[in-house]
Amino acid sequence: MSLRGMGADLRCRCIETESRRIGKLIKKVEMFPPSSHCRDTEIIATLSKSGQEICLDVSAPWVKKVIEKILANNK
Amino acid sequence: MSLRGMGADLRCRCIETESRRIGKLIKKVEMFPPSSHCRDTEIIATLSKSGQEICLDVSAPWVKKVIEKILANNK
Repeated sequence: MSLRGMGADLRCRCIETESRRIGKLIKKVEMFPPSSHCRDTEIIATLSKSGQEICLDVSAPWVKKVIEKILANNK
Repeated sequence: MSLRGMGADLRCRCIETESRRIGKLIKKVEMFPPSSHCRDTEIIATLSKSGQEICLDVSAPWVKKVIEKILANNK
């Protein structure tokens, strides 16, 4: 689940992705649609406590569930 | 669809949201689940061309569609 450093804008940000479920509190989820620089959809979660950024496996069912839950969790 | 500046971490980031469909190319979508600082789910899209950040209306059906499309748009 490592992430490229600076200049990631010009390439894919994620070198590998995490397919196992992260049970920890998610502070933010960033979604990057495919672009001229990277043909993959990339999803990066930032954990609340550690601030760690984790590249998530877009095709993993639990990732879609996490996103649906965030969307549904509105007031 | 204005967005707070610095220090937004301690409060809600979005002052108002855009409920009309933005047809422009989206570079990134950030999703912030409710937290101790903001009880709302917040979704912020960054436009490719202008880099403008737009707070999206979480309950608007087209927002869910945009996110589903990004998820489905994997290679």
